[in-house]
Amino acid sequence: MPWFTEMWTPHVKFQIEINAHIHHETTPFQVIDVYDSLEFGRFFTLDGIMMANEKDEFIYHEMIIHTPMSVNPQIKNVLIIGGGDGGSARELTKYPTIEKIDLVEIDERVVRVCQTHFRKTAIGFDDPRVHLFFEDGLAYVKKTTKTYDLIIVDSTDPIGPGEGLFTQAFYEHCYHRLSSDGILINQHESPYFTKEALEMRRAHQKIERIFPIAEVYQAFIPTYPSGHWLFGFASKTHHPLRDVQSSYIHACGQKTTYYNLDLHKGCFALPNYVIEQLKE
Amino acid sequence: MPWFTEMWTPHVKFQIEINAHIHHETTPFQVIDVYDSLEFGRFFTLDGIMMANEKDEFIYHEMIIHTPMSVNPQIKNVLIIGGGDGGSARELTKYPTIEKIDLVEIDERVVRVCQTHFRKTAIGFDDPRVHLFFEDGLAYVKKTTKTYDLIIVDSTDPIGPGEGLFTQAFYEHCYHRLSSDGILINQHESPYFTKEALEMRRAHQKIERIFPIAEVYQAFIPTYPSGHWLFGFASKTHHPLRDVQSSYIHACGQKTTYYNLDLHKGCFALPNYVIEQLKE
Repeated sequence: MPWFTEMWTPHVKFQIEINAHIHHETTPFQVIDVYDSLEFGRFFTLDGIMMANEKDEFIYHEMIIHTPMSVNPQIKNVLIIGGGDGGSARELTKYPTIEKIDLVEIDERVVRVCQTHFRKTAIGFDDPRVHLFFEDGLAYVKKTTKTYDLIIVDSTDPIGPGEGLFTQAFYEHCYHRLSSDGILINQHESPYFTKEALEMRRAHQKIERIFPIAEVYQAFIPTYPSGHWLFGFASKTHHPLRDVQSSYIHACGQKTTYYNLDLHKGCFALPNYVIEQLKE
Repeated sequence: MPWFTEMWTPHVKFQIEINAHIHHETTPFQVIDVYDSLEFGRFFTLDGIMMANEKDEFIYHEMIIHTPMSVNPQIKNVLIIGGGDGGSARELTKYPTIEKIDLVEIDERVVRVCQTHFRKTAIGFDDPRVHLFFEDGLAYVKKTTKTYDLIIVDSTDPIGPGEGLFTQAFYEHCYHRLSSDGILINQHESPYFTKEALEMRRAHQKIERIFPIAEVYQAFIPTYPSGHWLFGFASKTHHPLRDVQSSYIHACGQKTTYYNLDLHKGCFALPNYVIEQLKE
C-alpha cells in the first residue's frame, strides 16, 4: 500500500499507510485530497496538510467549541471562519440555546467534498441554524455589520488561503464584530517545532494587543505536527478559568469524548517553555 | 542524508533525518544506537525505539521526578528502576534534601554509552548520592530489604528487557519496598494507539489492585508514539492533587523548562476517552 507523507519539518516526516486515494481536486484556492487509512479511517488534506481524520477529529472540534461555550452558556450567535469540514458547526449545534451560526469558508469545494466524503463532520451543515457564506474571512469581518457572541477561527496554517486570518487587521475586525462580552477562539498553532512556534508567538502578540483577556490552551492532537496543539481564548470580559460554568455541554445531555470540566481547567496550564515563548 | 524510522504502529511511521550514526552495539539485552540529527540533536534508541533526545528529554524527566517530589518534599531515599540515561537521577539530584538514589539498570552498556555520548543526561550519575546496580529490576525489588520513599519505574516498553517491570509481582514488591507514605511513579505508555493503550490499561489495573491511590497524569512528548504520554502516580497515603505542596523544586532555586505547579494540577485532568479506558 502507498504511504501519505506530511513533512512536519524539513527533517521530520509523519507517514500514514493509505488504503485508497478517494478524491483529488485543485480548486482556485488549494488542493484537496481525501484518503482512507487503516489507522485513522478517512482523512482529508489541504495542500498536503492533514486537516481532519475520523480517529481524532473529535479532539480538535470538542476543544475549539466546548471550551468557550462552558465559559458563557448565554452565547446565541456564532461566526465560524473556516471550518469547512463542518465539525465545529456540529459541536455547536448540540446546544439548544444557539440561535444562529454563520460559517464563512473561502472555498466552497471543501464543504462539498466533505459533504460527500466526510459525513461524520459535515453533518454539522444539516442544522437549519447554520448559514454558509463562501467568501474570504478577512473580507467578511471587514464588511459585515452583524454582532456575534462568539467567533471561532477554525483556519488552516497561516500560509495560502488562511494567511489573512492571522493578521492584526483580522483580529481587530473580529474585536469590533463581537458583543460586549464576546469571545474569540482561534486555532493557535503549536509551541514545539520552529515554524508553528513562530506563528504561535506572532498570533498571540497581535491578539494580546487588542483583547483585555488573551489566554492559550492546549490539546493532544497526535495527527498535527508534534501532537501538541494550541488554541487561543481571547475575550472582552469573560476569563476562561474564573468564569467557567458547570459543564454546560453535559447539562445539555451531550456526551463528549475528550472535553470535560476538569480538563477545561487543566488545559490552560502550559509548560514553562511555552509560557516563555508567549511572553517574547 | 539517511532517515531513522520508528514504526509507531504497523501503519504509521515517524521519521527523523539523521546527520550521523554515532554508535551501534548489540548487548546481551538489546541493541543500542546513538544518532545525531538536526531537529532533535543527539538521540539514542533501544531496539530501534526512541528513548531520549536532546530537544525534549527535559519533558519526560521533569515530569517523572518533580511531580512526586512536589507532593512529598520529605522524600530522602529513592529507587530508580531503569533510567540508564541518567536523566531521572539528574533531576532528583537537584534537591539538596535527597540523601540516596539507588539506580537499578539491567544493561550496564546503556549507562556507559550515555556517559560517552549523552552527557547532558548522564551527568546525573556524577552525583555521589547515586549508586548504580546493574541487574534486573524485578529481581532487585524481590530480594532487597531496603525501604524507599519513592520508586521511579523509568523503563522501556513492556517487551524485551522491560517486560518484568509491568507485572503484578513487580508492582507488589515495589509496594512492600516503599515506606508507609511511599510513592511509585511509572512510565505508563499512551492512550492513543492500540498497542500502548492496551499496556496502559493492563498496568493501571494491576497498580490499582495494590495501591489505595492510583492516578494517571499526562505530558506532551512529541517523539513518543502519538506524543500523548502518561505516567502513573501510585501511593500509600499521598494524593497527587490534594497533597501537592508549593513548588518545592523552585524553592530549591531550580528552574524547570516544562514543569510548574499549575501544570502539576492540570496534568491529572485526563480526556474522557482516556478515563473510560482506565475504567475498563
